[in-house]
Amino acid sequence: KIDGDRLWDSIMEMAKIGPGVAGGNNRQTLTDADAEGRSLFQGWCEEAGMSMGVDRMGNMFMRHEGTEPALDPVYIGSHLDTQPTGGKYDGVLGVLSGLEVIRSIRDMGISTRRPIVVVNWTNEEGTRFAPAMLASGVFAGMHDEEYANSREDAEGKRFGDELDRIGWRGDEAPGERKIHAMFEYHIEQGPILEAENTQIGVVTHGQGLWWLQVTLTGKDAHTGSTPMKMRVNAGLGMSRIIEAVHRIAMDHQPNAVGAVGQANVYPNSRNVIPGRAVFTVDFRSPDLDKLNAMRARLEAEAPEIASELGLGIEIEPVGHFDPVTFDPKLAGMLRDAADRLGYSHMDIVSGAGHDACWINRVAPTVMIMCPCVDGLSHNEAEEISPEWASAGADVLLHAVLEAAEI
Amino acid sequence: KIDGDRLWDSIMEMAKIGPGVAGGNNRQTLTDADAEGRSLFQGWCEEAGMSMGVDRMGNMFMRHEGTEPALDPVYIGSHLDTQPTGGKYDGVLGVLSGLEVIRSIRDMGISTRRPIVVVNWTNEEGTRFAPAMLASGVFAGMHDEEYANSREDAEGKRFGDELDRIGWRGDEAPGERKIHAMFEYHIEQGPILEAENTQIGVVTHGQGLWWLQVTLTGKDAHTGSTPMKMRVNAGLGMSRIIEAVHRIAMDHQPNAVGAVGQANVYPNSRNVIPGRAVFTVDFRSPDLDKLNAMRARLEAEAPEIASELGLGIEIEPVGHFDPVTFDPKLAGMLRDAADRLGYSHMDIVSGAGHDACWINRVAPTVMIMCPCVDGLSHNEAEEISPEWASAGADVLLHAVLEAAEI
Ligand SMILES: NC(=O)NCCC(=O)O
Ligand SMILES: NC(=O)NCCC(=O)O
Repeated sequence: KIDGDRLWDSIMEMAKIGPGVAGGNNRQTLTDADAEGRSLFQGWCEEAGMSMGVDRMGNMFMRHEGTEPALDPVYIGSHLDTQPTGGKYDGVLGVLSGLEVIRSIRDMGISTRRPIVVVNWTNEEGTRFAPAMLASGVFAGMHDEEYANSREDAEGKRFGDELDRIGWRGDEAPGERKIHAMFEYHIEQGPILEAENTQIGVVTHGQGLWWLQVTLTGKDAHTGSTPMKMRVNAGLGMSRIIEAVHRIAMDHQPNAVGAVGQANVYPNSRNVIPGRAVFTVDFRSPDLDKLNAMRARLEAEAPEIASELGLGIEIEPVGHFDPVTFDPKLAGMLRDAADRLGYSHMDIVSGAGHDACWINRVAPTVMIMCPCVDGLSHNEAEEISPEWASAGADVLLHAVLEAAEI
Repeated sequence: KIDGDRLWDSIMEMAKIGPGVAGGNNRQTLTDADAEGRSLFQGWCEEAGMSMGVDRMGNMFMRHEGTEPALDPVYIGSHLDTQPTGGKYDGVLGVLSGLEVIRSIRDMGISTRRPIVVVNWTNEEGTRFAPAMLASGVFAGMHDEEYANSREDAEGKRFGDELDRIGWRGDEAPGERKIHAMFEYHIEQGPILEAENTQIGVVTHGQGLWWLQVTLTGKDAHTGSTPMKMRVNAGLGMSRIIEAVHRIAMDHQPNAVGAVGQANVYPNSRNVIPGRAVFTVDFRSPDLDKLNAMRARLEAEAPEIASELGLGIEIEPVGHFDPVTFDPKLAGMLRDAADRLGYSHMDIVSGAGHDACWINRVAPTVMIMCPCVDGLSHNEAEEISPEWASAGADVLLHAVLEAAEI
């Protein structure tokens, strides 16, 4: 078993960097706080005898050597970036459990034939720069580097410039590494494991996603002196489309979700009818047909809503992945490990996107999840117990040792 | 007649301060650009022999002496602040036409028994600090100074601190001045005068207004992994209330308008269900019963919408004035002046709020309007013709001379 106290202490240390306003974290990707978090993690890894490689996307690869260094390594990866009002565990648990696996096997004097590499993937959250899982997507060949470098945040700052600014651009070509297998350990971010009173989720599938950025163009005008019939109100159009997104998701129940998380009207003044609205629709389903049907229906309905109000509309996909099936053999290793350790487990589907969803395209990949309180995530109040955290890390340890050929 | 070219040149000079992004202006109240605009205006007034008084709200009173200085002065006032994406004329036309009236009567060697005071009222627009017409409201005794000083902008900066910062807090007690009559000249900001091909609007009434700031409280949660039935989506609630505002206004046609101009969701991240939404409803009508009925219906419907979604709701009035009836005698002077000058005129109702609406509470007040292209205002593309501008200023000159007792 891993050292649960040490794992928990490390999580709490990391949480001191980029504190949030309500007990969680705001350590968004490529901010100064992100750089500070990376350095802390680097230092811990180096103390544990690991060596660092960094690719041109800022992905950090911390290598623990195997007895046969020429063999393809086993990877354990997740992310250290957070939402603007994020929790302490989303992503961090997976990266620091990877570190804890290495610390533990060193303590126990265990060696593996294959090297083990613990990865911090850049910009998993996708809040500052869409899409989410950007740098693991480049690694997996889903996006090219130019696309990633050119992504802009709300202030117009470019991903590439911000990566250079914080000093974390490496020189490795993204994707050039060979991966024998990758494990990602993450909090569930949903309510199922807690409700089922189950310690371990073996993630067999992941939902697919469409992010559609909608821009409506109307006409700025005075809220008082402009007659109702002369208005071209982009804010009203946005409202109707937000309602349509909800209705579309409800019409595809079960196994489908939809919402608008980001929404801005311009010029955002109390006495100006919004002349422009920009917002992002998030549709997800584990069922590819449903996922694509929701997108298609929005693309049919939203232009109708816009044209009824005289609004111009543009719909641009800014994030996408198909539903994922993780590697059955690695999933089997997780189940065996949980059985061996005496932990309850069940198969589940990931509701969120994860770096593992992209890496799964290029190498055998699987995920393991632990419960989180009330299924709450992307909220500073996100919470897990130390026991949940270490049970999952124990399973991770056992499965990784099997994959890395003890 | 006034000097139309000189008036137009001054408007264009002022428009160089705080330029917008699309040909208009962003000279929001109590910004550095506002301070620069004030200094430019002060310099022009002093060149025209006027003396300055400034009150504790930053209202600027530029006095042209009468032959009987002890008589209560005639005031000409409007505002130099703009919307974030505002036009070059909204407010500015009225202030600089006041200056042009003084320049013209000096050129013509005319003197009046009563002094004439040209006023720049602070924070008319209300975008940065709600409510609109804040400082004329304090002058008229509608708000106390403490309330005004404590109003906060979106970054939490206080009105009082920003007024001190730009160095424009005077020492006069707001409202201590006696006003014989006040004239406000403004662009119509609506489509009627242009459609009726009429040069001069004599404003007999002004719409009343309610600004209601709504705060919805739900729960930040992951857009992917949170089942639909567990969501408490403040953005969805906001959308439904924006739709309700529109429906309520449509149900009170004619002579009623309603919209939401300012709308923010939090944390405003693509993959977070908004846990909070804050937005401002703007209802207006020249009919007091309709105005209050719209507010009452929103206060009945919005909590129902919120409770269906499990959201907490708070509704706070952040701006209000009753419909206004301007002084009939002063309105008569405007009609006579227009007739004398051979300008077409009609009586109209102001769709927007104006400083005149507050000053009307404490002294005889009237407004005069000129057309604006397509009725467009609160838009950088706001436009008027030099001929429209100077026709209104001519009428202002004549009526002011009559009121100031030539
Ligand atoms: N796990 C997680 O929250 N990832 C961010 C991408 C997503 O929205 O699913
Ligand atoms: N005239 C004008 O636009 N005033 C701002 C206050 C309002 O919204 O009516």
